[in-house]
Amino acid sequence: MSVIMKGSEVAASMKEELLREIEKLGQHGIVPGLGIVRVGTRPDDLAYERGAVKKLEGMGIRCRVFDFPETISQQDFEKEFSAVNDNPEIHGILLFRPLPKHLDEETVKKIINPLKDVDCMSAANIAKVFSGDETGFAPCTPEAVMEVLAHYGIDLQGKRVTVMGRSMVVGKPLSMLLLKKNATVTICHTKTKNLVETCSNAEIMIAAVGKAKVVTHYLVAENAVVIDVGINVDDEGKLCGDVDYDSVAPKASYITPVPGGVGTVTSSVLARHVVRAAGYLKKIY
Amino acid sequence: MSVIMKGSEVAASMKEELLREIEKLGQHGIVPGLGIVRVGTRPDDLAYERGAVKKLEGMGIRCRVFDFPETISQQDFEKEFSAVNDNPEIHGILLFRPLPKHLDEETVKKIINPLKDVDCMSAANIAKVFSGDETGFAPCTPEAVMEVLAHYGIDLQGKRVTVMGRSMVVGKPLSMLLLKKNATVTICHTKTKNLVETCSNAEIMIAAVGKAKVVTHYLVAENAVVIDVGINVDDEGKLCGDVDYDSVAPKASYITPVPGGVGTVTSSVLARHVVRAAGYLKKIY
Repeated sequence: MSVIMKGSEVAASMKEELLREIEKLGQHGIVPGLGIVRVGTRPDDLAYERGAVKKLEGMGIRCRVFDFPETISQQDFEKEFSAVNDNPEIHGILLFRPLPKHLDEETVKKIINPLKDVDCMSAANIAKVFSGDETGFAPCTPEAVMEVLAHYGIDLQGKRVTVMGRSMVVGKPLSMLLLKKNATVTICHTKTKNLVETCSNAEIMIAAVGKAKVVTHYLVAENAVVIDVGINVDDEGKLCGDVDYDSVAPKASYITPVPGGVGTVTSSVLARHVVRAAGYLKKIY
Repeated sequence: MSVIMKGSEVAASMKEELLREIEKLGQHGIVPGLGIVRVGTRPDDLAYERGAVKKLEGMGIRCRVFDFPETISQQDFEKEFSAVNDNPEIHGILLFRPLPKHLDEETVKKIINPLKDVDCMSAANIAKVFSGDETGFAPCTPEAVMEVLAHYGIDLQGKRVTVMGRSMVVGKPLSMLLLKKNATVTICHTKTKNLVETCSNAEIMIAAVGKAKVVTHYLVAENAVVIDVGINVDDEGKLCGDVDYDSVAPKASYITPVPGGVGTVTSSVLARHVVRAAGYLKKIY
């Protein structure tokens, strides 16, 4: 039987440490502040926003949502974003992406203060993640994966880890975080040939492809640790991951469920980044 | 019998294209200029400098060496480096690294104009390589590897490629360039366990570990393409690569020699970057 890696357990243990940090900031008169910047009203964004605001406010992190109509002009958006960026009460900024097509994300990436860039948009933070410099902010989701692995005591040193997916929000940065922990990392993607041969010797398999249930038991080795980053909707309209849970779970030694796995930890990582950012900016750390 | 992939052939074919580009710049009254910044007199640096200056000057690229004593202070070095950076006749800058320990490389990485950063020191260029944005400059050596593979018509799409080594000058950026070409990339390193099992199914094996002859035939699959990025000195004082050439060559379908392989192509990539930088800066491209 496989061990189910529950996001709620990871989040609970992170929360304890976070509350201590937030208390410490409080002793310096600082209330850590997150600015959430949203253009439009995509249901996914709204759902994440609600969850994150509830969790972070519950810990004592002040959240402020800056929402703009989908029709906002580039010039206005830059002005508004710069104001959030310059707001001394906002220590961390989360921008929902992708932006509507008429808005240029690249400009925003150049505007954001790397010290407030808690979800890794700026070149400065991207370069730090790539080079293994831990003073920057990695994107929240890949860091959540690392938290889950660490919480369940999964040793990465020298292990064969396969990452399925090569996006800039999960696959690539996650590969770098795994390398930093001395894993041997294989990055697979839609163009990978002989997927079974390539995947089935992985000791740890991480699915971040964004397609419902594509990782079946054929792709997973006996006793592998399986982490599912996907959040999809299946044919019956139910939330599911990239992993075909029912066929894979019996083979896995550890597995994350969807929902209730990595996704649950992402906003805890966001909280930690905001707290760290507040400490940096106020020069407490 | 394996095909020997000769750096000189790759460089010769690159030269033709470069000469055309340099002529085009000349029609706009531009002589592309490289500034080589060297602190101290490390023999390796001097050897590379001599070779690069000879090759680039031979094509019509103006090279200027800015050399400083190893004792230069941080403040003076920053001033001197900034002057090179601001020099309008210098379109590309090559800084020999590592710098002496008392000098802070991070500051220099922030000073350099990303448009002149032809060997990928700045966060802007590192982030571009990581995200697969080809408007930046990748480091010269990994790009030389890509040139060798392309010149010999090695298809990368979906292929299993193993990169041995995870440095910021070769292994990591090379992995990103390979991913961009849709290879399935595995990154191995000193902490990799079961190296034979992990490496021996690679269709393409790239050695960038910096240790003489450590890649033996046990690690290489029959008919693999083998690229050797290493430049080492063996027990007899002879130049050699990371690959144990004599044992590996009979198994390989293609192989690069050392010397005469990837190293020969690196300065051609440098030349191309300087030419591109001159075009960018003068807004010809």
